[in-house]
Amino acid sequence: MRFYDIIKKKRDGFELTKEEIEFFAFGAADGSIPDYQLTAMLMAIFFKGMSKRETADLTLAMANSGDTVDLSPLGGITADKHSTGGVGDKTTLIVAPIVASCGVKVAKMSGRGLGHTGGTVDKLESIPGYKTTLTREEFFGVVEKSSMSVIGQSGNLAPADKKLYALRDVTATVDSIPLIASSIMSKKIAAGAACIVLDIKVGSGAFMKTPELAQSLAREMIDIGTAVGRKTAAVISNMDVPLGINVGNSLEVIEAVETLRGNGPEDLKELCICLAANMLVLSGKGSEEECTALARAALESGRAFETLKACVEAQGGDASYLDNIDKFPKAKYSFDIVAESDGYITKMDSERIGIAACMLGAGRKTANDTIDFAAGLKILKKTGGKVCKGDILATLYANDEALFASAAEEYTAAVTLGNSRPKVLPIIISTVR
Amino acid sequence: MRFYDIIKKKRDGFELTKEEIEFFAFGAADGSIPDYQLTAMLMAIFFKGMSKRETADLTLAMANSGDTVDLSPLGGITADKHSTGGVGDKTTLIVAPIVASCGVKVAKMSGRGLGHTGGTVDKLESIPGYKTTLTREEFFGVVEKSSMSVIGQSGNLAPADKKLYALRDVTATVDSIPLIASSIMSKKIAAGAACIVLDIKVGSGAFMKTPELAQSLAREMIDIGTAVGRKTAAVISNMDVPLGINVGNSLEVIEAVETLRGNGPEDLKELCICLAANMLVLSGKGSEEECTALARAALESGRAFETLKACVEAQGGDASYLDNIDKFPKAKYSFDIVAESDGYITKMDSERIGIAACMLGAGRKTANDTIDFAAGLKILKKTGGKVCKGDILATLYANDEALFASAAEEYTAAVTLGNSRPKVLPIIISTVR
Repeated sequence: MRFYDIIKKKRDGFELTKEEIEFFAFGAADGSIPDYQLTAMLMAIFFKGMSKRETADLTLAMANSGDTVDLSPLGGITADKHSTGGVGDKTTLIVAPIVASCGVKVAKMSGRGLGHTGGTVDKLESIPGYKTTLTREEFFGVVEKSSMSVIGQSGNLAPADKKLYALRDVTATVDSIPLIASSIMSKKIAAGAACIVLDIKVGSGAFMKTPELAQSLAREMIDIGTAVGRKTAAVISNMDVPLGINVGNSLEVIEAVETLRGNGPEDLKELCICLAANMLVLSGKGSEEECTALARAALESGRAFETLKACVEAQGGDASYLDNIDKFPKAKYSFDIVAESDGYITKMDSERIGIAACMLGAGRKTANDTIDFAAGLKILKKTGGKVCKGDILATLYANDEALFASAAEEYTAAVTLGNSRPKVLPIIISTVR
Repeated sequence: MRFYDIIKKKRDGFELTKEEIEFFAFGAADGSIPDYQLTAMLMAIFFKGMSKRETADLTLAMANSGDTVDLSPLGGITADKHSTGGVGDKTTLIVAPIVASCGVKVAKMSGRGLGHTGGTVDKLESIPGYKTTLTREEFFGVVEKSSMSVIGQSGNLAPADKKLYALRDVTATVDSIPLIASSIMSKKIAAGAACIVLDIKVGSGAFMKTPELAQSLAREMIDIGTAVGRKTAAVISNMDVPLGINVGNSLEVIEAVETLRGNGPEDLKELCICLAANMLVLSGKGSEEECTALARAALESGRAFETLKACVEAQGGDASYLDNIDKFPKAKYSFDIVAESDGYITKMDSERIGIAACMLGAGRKTANDTIDFAAGLKILKKTGGKVCKGDILATLYANDEALFASAAEEYTAAVTLGNSRPKVLPIIISTVR
């Protein structure tokens, strides 16, 4: 088999065989296909697409290109959740304990933040002592103790995807539905859970700019999951505004704790219950209504909060920080962004708000940057909110005052004021199964 | 400027600016753009094409990415010819002396053969002593003496094209009209001649499989030439059958000499006169009719032959070989391919005939192979020819008898016999100006 012929076949619009797709994925993983051929192929796929069958084959080949996690020794049903990346998205910290406290095991690998989006692993590391790198035995031990564990990606998971994603990122071949879908699903499949719920963000802070595109991506990923024997569902949620109020690592842990204790913002709570309910439905815990009630009860009873604490403790973290959120170190400085006129917030650019938080030290511009856990921002007025001149729109937090000027400028540019109340999309746009 | 943005712009179908195209070409030449980005770009161009303006800009940028030859010190008018590559194509050896003997200077750089197509430089090297590597002063000196010189490509000519062509060759992005056109024209423009005639082959032995495609390529190249101030014309010629009779290096020199002495095959003679006439027309030597007469007279009077001899001598070659072609070393062995039934030759696959010659030692499979100058074949029956069982279709020549079996098999597979006389395309399909 020559990769040249496979590129040409795709370029000319023919469907690739399973063997050809495996040649591609394994050749990407082991370096036997040079990068310059891989990127020509990726651009050909960008233009010619892939059939459902090809996409499922690529996903499975990428999943099988490296280590795969076998969660069966845990017994019972396992569920996982994936978000396509948002601003202020702390749902894992709430959804995982809800689901775990309902008898479904959550053994989850999460990522780190890059650019305008945060990562669950960074957020958890803001809890002193919390270890995000565990051996397989430790990982399984935590799940046995607390029904859940969240660690960083370990081992050599889907190296073909890692390679191809890095190349797509620099060759303008990221935004292809089959490539996005197979990339996400390959990692989820390698990570081992039987049930997968996808949180697909749509809007200004998301990769998918319209509900239609999000719907296509959802369909594609569910079809892949189904084709390879994983129960899969998707929730399409609104990222035209950041999720909840806090953006930043310990700030988001604090907001998650508040939500688990019944004091969270409504949009965050609603999305978390919806995601958890979908995971429970896939896990066979009942109808959508029943599972929604289960999830809500787990949250409102405080059982989910206890589960999170048990997990944090089992993973070496100081759970007293969750009982007493004032223990989290505060940023030395704060800066209020004040409305300069009356009106309504008609639009927010979530991506730019994520960038503003990153500028304050909450995120990484490049993979080697270090994170200031206390840095970030609180959003006090969101799209649809009425604003009077002088109202505080947001408060920025940083350990270096010099960072405020450009972050405030970014934040201000991200917010549009107008004279009439805008139509506001609900947090949950649709559920796809 | 980030190359990522330029790829994305092309991918999305927008026209690139001159600056963006220069960034691309110069970045390819100096290695500042990584290969994996270049190939993504090439595939995007494959799908989205390039406007006339973009193609001309790319051509000029590639021409200017390395050394450019200034032929103005030679004085007078300079003309060049380029063939898109055929089997048995020895036209340069005939056309250049015709044109030179009519008062137009031909200072030409030619290529070496690879795969099924031969190269003029290899053919010339079969003349003992002929030097294909000259300094600029020697090169100009030969032109001053004999009005013509043919050398190998020297210096760093169009390195951007060299780089991009090598990448296209392994990523299925060769067959794009703007990329082919700009590749050829960049080298011709860097080589300096004021008038350029393109011999675009069409048919089984050619890259362009239909006259329509050849016509598009011709139009594209003429538009480029015009845009950058070179007089350009194209002849579309038939490569459904090899050109002339002989394929192989000294065999083709011998056939060229025979043609210059009035004993060549008709197709070869006709094409050479047509190409030479077009070069003379562009050089302002008169109308097409007048220039055709000029070219014919130069050939038939023996003046062109004298010019070739003068050039060979000035370039260190032993011109007595041209006066006495029996001096060329013969291959030790010959092998006749005999018709197994009566009929007509209805089809020949020129590419496979080129491959058969290559197998005999006349060509290179890879760039490092050495060539056997005496090896090759003579085609005794061509498409349209009546054949009786036992007739010799072709004679193969080699210095190693072991080579005949597979070469004969290849040749036989290249020739189709049928019961009725086929329609035969003329050698010259059209002229485009």
